[in-house]
Amino acid sequence: MGRLAIIAGTGALPGLVAARHPAVIVRLAGVPCDAEGAGLIEARLEHLGQMFADLRASGVTELCLAGAMRRASFDTAKLDAETQALLPRIMAAQGRGDDALLREVVAIFEDEGFTVRGAHELRPDLLASGNAGATEAQSADAARARAVLAALGPLDVGQAAVAAKGQLLGIETLQGTDALLRFVAETAPGSGGVLVKRAKPGQDLRVDMPAIGPDTVALAAEAGLSGIELQAGHVLLLDPDAVETAAKARGLSIWAVP
Amino acid sequence: MGRLAIIAGTGALPGLVAARHPAVIVRLAGVPCDAEGAGLIEARLEHLGQMFADLRASGVTELCLAGAMRRASFDTAKLDAETQALLPRIMAAQGRGDDALLREVVAIFEDEGFTVRGAHELRPDLLASGNAGATEAQSADAARARAVLAALGPLDVGQAAVAAKGQLLGIETLQGTDALLRFVAETAPGSGGVLVKRAKPGQDLRVDMPAIGPDTVALAAEAGLSGIELQAGHVLLLDPDAVETAAKARGLSIWAVP
Repeated sequence: MGRLAIIAGTGALPGLVAARHPAVIVRLAGVPCDAEGAGLIEARLEHLGQMFADLRASGVTELCLAGAMRRASFDTAKLDAETQALLPRIMAAQGRGDDALLREVVAIFEDEGFTVRGAHELRPDLLASGNAGATEAQSADAARARAVLAALGPLDVGQAAVAAKGQLLGIETLQGTDALLRFVAETAPGSGGVLVKRAKPGQDLRVDMPAIGPDTVALAAEAGLSGIELQAGHVLLLDPDAVETAAKARGLSIWAVP
Repeated sequence: MGRLAIIAGTGALPGLVAARHPAVIVRLAGVPCDAEGAGLIEARLEHLGQMFADLRASGVTELCLAGAMRRASFDTAKLDAETQALLPRIMAAQGRGDDALLREVVAIFEDEGFTVRGAHELRPDLLASGNAGATEAQSADAARARAVLAALGPLDVGQAAVAAKGQLLGIETLQGTDALLRFVAETAPGSGGVLVKRAKPGQDLRVDMPAIGPDTVALAAEAGLSGIELQAGHVLLLDPDAVETAAKARGLSIWAVP
């Protein structure tokens, strides 16, 4: 493996990857990041040409896009020539949804000669696995939520859903899993239901890996849920020990299924 | 048409039907209702045998289930013999979702010899129709929300969804349209998006008619939406004049498509 750079989104993941792999951190303007690495590149999405040059100057050949990267707003008045040339590709992909946009970003990095590696490849120890033993009711609710996510997947919608007693109580939209859980807490407290979190079919895990952390567990508990079902090998735990501790403290079960 | 009884749910619809058709009002225990009719029957879901007898004693041959009837809790310790005998049918249907449950309730009334008529048959003047002229952006957002509802329909989920700038901002679940709009107001204010409200495929309009009123318009405006798209002939306006006035006052467009 060549020299690694982490293009850092928000959250704990960039730091978790950097903790195991010496890496240059690419800090994007407007994206808060406290990960520390073996070097630092300050970059902006409008100046991709500069970013590519800085990466090459640092000897970087491998890239990892880690952390939450909400569709960044992008000042088209500030583009460098290289970014300007890429704009049609970016705009066309943006119109086809988040997944298409991220796939296009990966394709652009690959066209520039970089190898794109997923955070889950660099930290496979964080992947959800195993079965804590869901009850029959939890399994039934999880199956209902899973069916909804399967129906929505082709539309590039929905990484998570909540079901309780056979009824859907919430489906994740653009606002994310935390907003979904707050909605359930406010509108359907004490349901004893289940949060299901999965990758969308076709989701490029190298750049858009579903993840939960101890905060997710706390929000699920505040929403009155009894369990969380994750897709085995497709959801990262940030970090696994803290998630387990939070789940135990709150009386939630967490399990993974294929 | 024989004598009509309205089994009254909450909201304005029972009164709107009774205003045009002389009818006996069936008031269910636990369901607030201020509709006035040509007669009154007090009933409970646990005593269906008694309800059937009272309806026959009043000469009723036609029934209209009007208004919001959230899945009522049902005290199985209080059932009369006739309801007890029907319990297996009700419980089996309940496990298959809201639509299945309502279809089974209609089948039970029909087995008892009553004709079940939809509120939209008795008040066709309230049905959404026409096109106020959506902008191109509104049409695109509506198409996105419609695609999501189409994907979820077979799962008996989703009468409404909100999209803005091509992104899904909310999908209705058990908590209903008002809760959906409040969620959007809190988590994605000022989006300028569109609420789409439609019947689910296979939804029995005779007993479960999607409806919006001036309150829905007010909530949509507070959520920062710019328009509401309804399914023509499949959504009731409660009442049309007040809805139009509210939309004008708030600067929202409302249109209907097939």
